[in-house]
Amino acid sequence: RIDRDRLWATLMELKEIGAYDDEATGLRGVRRLALTDADAEARRRCVAWMVEAGLEVRVDRIGNVYATRPGRDRSLPCVLMGSHIDTVATGGAFDGTLGVLGGIEVMRTLDDAGIETLRDIEVGFFTEEEGVRFGTDMLGSAVTAGRIPLEHAHKLTDNDGKTVEEELIRIGFDGEAHERRPIPHAYIECHIEQGPILSTAGVTIGIVEGVQSISWQRLTLHGEAAHAGTTPIPARHDAGLVAASVVVEARRMCDSGEFGQLRATVGNFVVSDGQTNVIPHTATITIDLRNPNNTHMTAAESHLATYVHTLSTQHGVTATWERMAKTPVVPFDPAIQNLLASTADDLDLPYVRTMSGAGHDAQEIAALCPTAMVFVAGENGGISHTPREHSTPAACADGTDVLANAVLHLANQ
Amino acid sequence: RIDRDRLWATLMELKEIGAYDDEATGLRGVRRLALTDADAEARRRCVAWMVEAGLEVRVDRIGNVYATRPGRDRSLPCVLMGSHIDTVATGGAFDGTLGVLGGIEVMRTLDDAGIETLRDIEVGFFTEEEGVRFGTDMLGSAVTAGRIPLEHAHKLTDNDGKTVEEELIRIGFDGEAHERRPIPHAYIECHIEQGPILSTAGVTIGIVEGVQSISWQRLTLHGEAAHAGTTPIPARHDAGLVAASVVVEARRMCDSGEFGQLRATVGNFVVSDGQTNVIPHTATITIDLRNPNNTHMTAAESHLATYVHTLSTQHGVTATWERMAKTPVVPFDPAIQNLLASTADDLDLPYVRTMSGAGHDAQEIAALCPTAMVFVAGENGGISHTPREHSTPAACADGTDVLANAVLHLANQ
Ligand SMILES: NC(=O)NCCC(=O)O
Ligand SMILES: NC(=O)NCCC(=O)O
Repeated sequence: RIDRDRLWATLMELKEIGAYDDEATGLRGVRRLALTDADAEARRRCVAWMVEAGLEVRVDRIGNVYATRPGRDRSLPCVLMGSHIDTVATGGAFDGTLGVLGGIEVMRTLDDAGIETLRDIEVGFFTEEEGVRFGTDMLGSAVTAGRIPLEHAHKLTDNDGKTVEEELIRIGFDGEAHERRPIPHAYIECHIEQGPILSTAGVTIGIVEGVQSISWQRLTLHGEAAHAGTTPIPARHDAGLVAASVVVEARRMCDSGEFGQLRATVGNFVVSDGQTNVIPHTATITIDLRNPNNTHMTAAESHLATYVHTLSTQHGVTATWERMAKTPVVPFDPAIQNLLASTADDLDLPYVRTMSGAGHDAQEIAALCPTAMVFVAGENGGISHTPREHSTPAACADGTDVLANAVLHLANQ
Repeated sequence: RIDRDRLWATLMELKEIGAYDDEATGLRGVRRLALTDADAEARRRCVAWMVEAGLEVRVDRIGNVYATRPGRDRSLPCVLMGSHIDTVATGGAFDGTLGVLGGIEVMRTLDDAGIETLRDIEVGFFTEEEGVRFGTDMLGSAVTAGRIPLEHAHKLTDNDGKTVEEELIRIGFDGEAHERRPIPHAYIECHIEQGPILSTAGVTIGIVEGVQSISWQRLTLHGEAAHAGTTPIPARHDAGLVAASVVVEARRMCDSGEFGQLRATVGNFVVSDGQTNVIPHTATITIDLRNPNNTHMTAAESHLATYVHTLSTQHGVTATWERMAKTPVVPFDPAIQNLLASTADDLDLPYVRTMSGAGHDAQEIAALCPTAMVFVAGENGGISHTPREHSTPAACADGTDVLANAVLHLANQ
């Protein structure tokens, strides 16, 4: 069993890096967007912990960081643990960090117990998992898996036009290791659930069967600025109205059941130039669609495309779509899932099997090697991406115990 | 008749102050928000023209500027002309400026013709007519009319928290004249129509019967940030969705005819913190309603309040309303309207009578003295608040001719 208090202390210490007082909730949140100064400081803290634990640290060209605990036979593929330490702008202390700090805690626990393994064990953290800053989620792990070319990732920009490459160099995490890492024997990611399924079932542990499909698109609408008081309703080309209609339609699509278990979110809504008495000439929104079924996802995307085409034509507004990210449903490896289940059984930890609503680095690494995830329940219905995100020390320890024992098993295979 | 070329040259010269290259239209627009550096420069240019024309210039405590051409009997109330020189962020060369530069042109024309008048004639420009920067339109004239207290106006802030008072001091237009000016004998404002009625009727001149009711409100919605992928649809408190629904409902209200000739515009739409995979916790929109009928306006406002209350309750979102501006229907003086009509007849200029869709300083000054307006037709359906705003030199001269002759008549009354 891992050291619950040590794990918790580490989680609470990292939380302070990028912490802020959140007005909306009155709570202390975390704002540690990828490759910002706060992220850089958190990276250095994690690297320091890795070095303290006697691990060999390397950084690759997309800024992913790996730390190795050598096994007896170093020619064998390693067992990899990991997740991310970047957060959204309204984040909490657990999303991503649990898998990374949990992985470091596993290393410490193995050392404390004087346990040697056949294979190397590694723990890593991947760059820009959240996708909030540069617009593509799971960026570092997608480059690792070869789905996104390094050159493409390097050129992505934030809202201020700064590139991933510039920012990697600026914070000193433009590493030398190749971004296509050696193929691991297996990958296990421990992560908070970020949803209500575990707490509803009354368990702390989830064995993750896979990740649902994710579609991110940016839609820009160009209409025409005109006077709010004098312009007759039929003469308007209101870009903001078309954008708002898309928000409402996206929700209707979810409520209708037509597209299975579709979830749609518009998290960005910008109108230019934001003037009370001027019809907005341009509006830009992002549309985040999720679906556990690829066919339903395709249907939802094409319905929305048709809806936007019809409505924007009707309003004399032009619509431009930009693909930010798209991943299909990713099923996890059944054997690793079963190993996680039997490990939980051995530890007397009740669990449920569940799909993941959120995207995770594991879905990218799954393209390289047998992969699965352990979920840890959250409080308050598992709410996440808000400072209200919270998991108990007991739940975090339960998940990390499952991780530790499953990894130990795999590392001696 | 005024000097058409001289008026046009003045309009084109002022256009260059605050000019910018507009991406959306590919045209050269004007961005001269109230009390910015560009506005300050335009104010200084106008004051220079006033001084050149031999006028006595004074600035009041809300930054309104008046220039006087003395009459034979200075104890009599003056005849006032005026408008504004601030613009929206996506403005053109005519909105407001025509009435000010036209007024200066009237003074020059009277001088050229060696005409003396019984009464003083004044031309003025009022501070922050557009309301785009500090959130309340017709600000300077409303303070003049006593509808808005000076102290209240001074404390209004822009998006960066700068106050009207600070900005008046910064640009050196915190004058000493009392903001409640002496009651004029009459006020006439010449302004572009900013709508399609005149051009549809094939005339360059409109005699304005009054201004429709204007309601500006800011609506802030507080929901809860949560993960886009994991949060079940029924568990969401999506502030952006409620805001978008209001935009769509406001348009439906216009289309339905239920609220007479309602026009509704949402020109501002801000979600915090703008993240692709986070449900927005806060959304703020402005709602601009216009109605030529006070009863319909009241009904529209109360329908919208009920709609927002019901929808936000349903979504577990709290709604906060803030009143930015509200003016009832303002009818103009029938005698001044008839004088403008007979003046247009004398000049052989065909005209139509029309209500104004836009708010104007004249609706505030109407509380002080007999007031009316002359409209000048615009090209492209009279479109305004966009760089596409355009009026011909001939139309601008026609309107200023009506202004000149009507003012001359009143100044000898
Ligand atoms: N786990 C997590 O928050 N991932 C971010 C990517 C997503 O939006 O699902
Ligand atoms: N004329 C004009 O554009 N006035 C601004 C106030 C309004 O929005 O109507």
